[in-house]
Amino acid sequence: MDRTSLVPALKNIATRLRIDSVRSTSEAGSGHPTSCMSMADVTAALFFAEMRFDPKDPKNPESDRFVLSKGHAAPILYSAWAEAGAFDRAELMKLREIGSDLEGHPTPRLPFVDVATGSLGQGICAAIGTALNARRIKSDYRTYVLLGDGESAEGSVWEAADVAALDKLDNLCGITDVNALGQSRPTMWEHDMGQFERRWKAFGWHAIVIDGHDMAQILDAFAEAKATKGQPTMILARTIKGKGVSFVEGKNGWHGKPFKKGEELDRAIAELEKQFVPAEGDSGADLAARIPKPASKPRGVDTPKPVAAPAYKKGDLVATREAFGTALAKLGEADLRVVALDADVKNSTFSDRFEAIAPDRFFQNFIAEQVMVGAAMGLAARGAIPFPSTFACFLTRAADFVRMAAISNVGIKLTGSHAGVSIGEDGPSQMALEDLAMYRAEPNYTVLYPSDAVCAERLLVEMAYHAGPAYMRTSRPKTPVIYDNEEKFPIGGLKVLRQSAGDAVTVIGAGVTLFEALKAYDRLKAAGTSIRVIDLYSVQPVDKAALIAAGKATGGHLITVEDHYAAGGIGDSVAEAVADAGLTVHRLAVREIPRSGKPEELVERFGISAAHIAEAVEAVMAGK
Amino acid sequence: MDRTSLVPALKNIATRLRIDSVRSTSEAGSGHPTSCMSMADVTAALFFAEMRFDPKDPKNPESDRFVLSKGHAAPILYSAWAEAGAFDRAELMKLREIGSDLEGHPTPRLPFVDVATGSLGQGICAAIGTALNARRIKSDYRTYVLLGDGESAEGSVWEAADVAALDKLDNLCGITDVNALGQSRPTMWEHDMGQFERRWKAFGWHAIVIDGHDMAQILDAFAEAKATKGQPTMILARTIKGKGVSFVEGKNGWHGKPFKKGEELDRAIAELEKQFVPAEGDSGADLAARIPKPASKPRGVDTPKPVAAPAYKKGDLVATREAFGTALAKLGEADLRVVALDADVKNSTFSDRFEAIAPDRFFQNFIAEQVMVGAAMGLAARGAIPFPSTFACFLTRAADFVRMAAISNVGIKLTGSHAGVSIGEDGPSQMALEDLAMYRAEPNYTVLYPSDAVCAERLLVEMAYHAGPAYMRTSRPKTPVIYDNEEKFPIGGLKVLRQSAGDAVTVIGAGVTLFEALKAYDRLKAAGTSIRVIDLYSVQPVDKAALIAAGKATGGHLITVEDHYAAGGIGDSVAEAVADAGLTVHRLAVREIPRSGKPEELVERFGISAAHIAEAVEAVMAGK
Repeated sequence: MDRTSLVPALKNIATRLRIDSVRSTSEAGSGHPTSCMSMADVTAALFFAEMRFDPKDPKNPESDRFVLSKGHAAPILYSAWAEAGAFDRAELMKLREIGSDLEGHPTPRLPFVDVATGSLGQGICAAIGTALNARRIKSDYRTYVLLGDGESAEGSVWEAADVAALDKLDNLCGITDVNALGQSRPTMWEHDMGQFERRWKAFGWHAIVIDGHDMAQILDAFAEAKATKGQPTMILARTIKGKGVSFVEGKNGWHGKPFKKGEELDRAIAELEKQFVPAEGDSGADLAARIPKPASKPRGVDTPKPVAAPAYKKGDLVATREAFGTALAKLGEADLRVVALDADVKNSTFSDRFEAIAPDRFFQNFIAEQVMVGAAMGLAARGAIPFPSTFACFLTRAADFVRMAAISNVGIKLTGSHAGVSIGEDGPSQMALEDLAMYRAEPNYTVLYPSDAVCAERLLVEMAYHAGPAYMRTSRPKTPVIYDNEEKFPIGGLKVLRQSAGDAVTVIGAGVTLFEALKAYDRLKAAGTSIRVIDLYSVQPVDKAALIAAGKATGGHLITVEDHYAAGGIGDSVAEAVADAGLTVHRLAVREIPRSGKPEELVERFGISAAHIAEAVEAVMAGK
Repeated sequence: MDRTSLVPALKNIATRLRIDSVRSTSEAGSGHPTSCMSMADVTAALFFAEMRFDPKDPKNPESDRFVLSKGHAAPILYSAWAEAGAFDRAELMKLREIGSDLEGHPTPRLPFVDVATGSLGQGICAAIGTALNARRIKSDYRTYVLLGDGESAEGSVWEAADVAALDKLDNLCGITDVNALGQSRPTMWEHDMGQFERRWKAFGWHAIVIDGHDMAQILDAFAEAKATKGQPTMILARTIKGKGVSFVEGKNGWHGKPFKKGEELDRAIAELEKQFVPAEGDSGADLAARIPKPASKPRGVDTPKPVAAPAYKKGDLVATREAFGTALAKLGEADLRVVALDADVKNSTFSDRFEAIAPDRFFQNFIAEQVMVGAAMGLAARGAIPFPSTFACFLTRAADFVRMAAISNVGIKLTGSHAGVSIGEDGPSQMALEDLAMYRAEPNYTVLYPSDAVCAERLLVEMAYHAGPAYMRTSRPKTPVIYDNEEKFPIGGLKVLRQSAGDAVTVIGAGVTLFEALKAYDRLKAAGTSIRVIDLYSVQPVDKAALIAAGKATGGHLITVEDHYAAGGIGDSVAEAVADAGLTVHRLAVREIPRSGKPEELVERFGISAAHIAEAVEAVMAGK
């Protein structure tokens, strides 16, 4: 279709998208119509003159991707897909109903949504992941991501800006909908387009400023973006919030406010309907037929090879963080879907072992944890098996991404090293003591905590092939290998390491505290007391039945000991699992802000050493 | 002292700071000497020719502030303060020992540290807080913050950059130590100073590029920064990592690595000692005497006035988020130390009521939660009582700041609105369901959860005057006022709302679930069963004795019900409190990723409604 015919056709689509957005939010009684209206022209051009996709097969691996980073504009996203023929337009009027997957903000319950958005500044990070994935699978698909202007205040946007430029992601095209109004007031820079342009250019992007309601300028900008090589492009679209309805255009106070059904809505619709222009071929069927379908490439399936078994000798001293690196490299060799992401600590987490064997699947994010996790979300959504890793405490920086990954239910495989006070001298800022709480809080996260190198290697492979998001916690100190190389560690299991008929109590540890428990076992044994010792390598889910059985066999008492604060970790996990069984759970955990010192001094001072365990065992026995 | 004498004196100080940093880390056996050595010249100039402070009174309200954002360079910070006379230089050799407050990364255990650093990208956010505080108290003190170049990849740095420029903080001077080497590899931009300059200028700062080892350039840059009005200044100092010791200068692989005692250390020290130049008056005593002391202004004490009591009628329908806004405005009128910080949601959280009465103490951060919380940390450290607030789910964005605020033990008073599935149609991305877990994990956070407007108003005042960090969770739906305006809500307490001698079980709720519990009470009562109902408005600490007493009085059974995921919230809090008492805790909580729908539909579907409570009560009774 030539430009003369295309422009009016696209204008009419934009008008229809506006009408849908207005109607559906009024019907729902909530939502953000004015945020949709500002981006309607860009959306029409993107879906009906730019992207290659198949509305009936949105997950096609060669399909261009669209991420709505400003997730509150969900109604227009839904409207565009309906217009393209993905589903019946009548569904739009069920927006935000409990029975509809057309939620208030997009989630991957919908087949055309890769990752959930609605927490601003995340979509662009995920888009980096889908763009990197195109490289991984050697596809020429492009990724488009649409941001709000207010959203540009989020630091994660600038993390993404840096990484995309460094990675020269010319298959990534951003659009910022500069409508100048935030939720509660005008945005930082309102319509000063130079503010945006200067920033994006300084961060190494090709930046194009356009009138976001001028269809020809929009089409030209997309063409320019596609022709730009060696750097990503950001199209900065000056728009009017509420565009198309005179009494809300550019007015503060209309954010997240639907038109009231009745006179207000009718006036809005009447105004919009007047904006249809004479055009040919803009009916739904025509349009869907015109969308360029992605090339259907035959793709061989990269069948993963078996991963080499751990190869340790019992008693070897190996930190679990190091075993993680070894295992990640092995897995990377066995399965080409595996990628690793780092935040400039690869020599401490040992992810550099993966880089050594697969530099093209190793993505460096420098010290920017949010984009690291966000990019992993995008990669996972497109079929990669991403392993982002850094110090466990610094993954906290990406907590909101961890949360949105839960909502997206994407298979990101996080690993956090340097857990707990046992890191020693670096002090509390480097100690993760709330990480188990963070991941356990998300109901669909698998949470793993190996104590030795064999277990770490095995769990890494388990987490890779377990659906959904997962977290593995590794430790800094070297610990002895205690398991056979052939030992299996299924998710949801545990290992009983010491048991006898007369055990006084069950002690449950993981990581460094498991070895404290084993030391306590030896000391107590020498004094004539036997205890049961459990390695709780799977913190979520936990093996409820085995915990209850152990507790019942040991006088109804369980002692948990963890290099973590008292709330949200192993103690809580065990306590909930056995809540109905009439058992008593005693918890040893870090209960105050720690400080620098030698690892063993800190383990002692903060109450999680063998001596503290022995004391707790004795207290239980005295109380019985 | 004239420039000709000053420069060699400062060079000698820089050399001493390098020697101290090298010696103390070698003695400790860990630490980051090369990261100190790159910034030694800047540090010498800052402490001995630029800042106004009293080494013996670092907390003086008029004193210039220095924040070491690259906290791993702690040894040189300690050395500078020792050199200035704050403490005995011999202490430096106890670096990182458990008995010393000279920790691996700086914490406010030291009187000259405002906030803990060591998680990169946070110090500059805190520095905004100390700079804003100068405005609040009408002081001309200046804030200096030193960042690493690798650190500049953190998005929070760019959030800070925006806010500082928007607030025209010309009393803030940043220095970036561009030593070109990160932990595991060269930094993103290595020594390409233009990359830094372009970014900071684009973000509205005055940027000055200098050779960070040229003392005259350093002094000139500080003078230029001081003379720059209407915008903050960033001094971009090109430096060499490991500067001063030939065999490590500019070499990768030396991050976080002390010199080995013996030959390696001796060589390093010998090289450094050769760098002393002839100079006068650079002994410790001379230097300390030369530091300009802050002006000693007489300051009236702004005695806070009593806060007006809540003024509701029982049965009024008021959302706790709205009561928060009302109370914050009242408190702001009564106490001039109170400030509020927003992330462009003031009309949803109702913090705009505070803005209306105290616009000069209301700080807008736009959609940038990390800098909002970070700035609050700096404000709190300097005597303000800061209330940052946004949707509870978006505070998750600042989780790592929440963690560092715990380590700093600063009195930030966070409030998160829109908790749980009861927000309804906006969907899971806008629902905080892991916030209680996040704050409870920190051992020194107070965690509050009001159910009605009276309680919300009272708790806001409680949290303001309770030492340390605190979090209050508010809800979106309107709920009836159930308390007298005169009711008191001490931290660590609870309210028993329904009780009788024959109560079958105790039900514990807070926020919207308290009203579900009350509904369940009515239904069960009608059917002849009485239950005890507790309002757990203080989630951390909890009233252990009262919970145990209630549990014992009601057959040993407690049911918790919360608009939060199952892990880390009210259920865990109660379960740990009663762990030793032989009681059984049954938990009703959200156990899967929720979706959009009407609030009441979601409360029902996700298992926390009155019907679910009644069912749980019946199950307990059947099981007895």
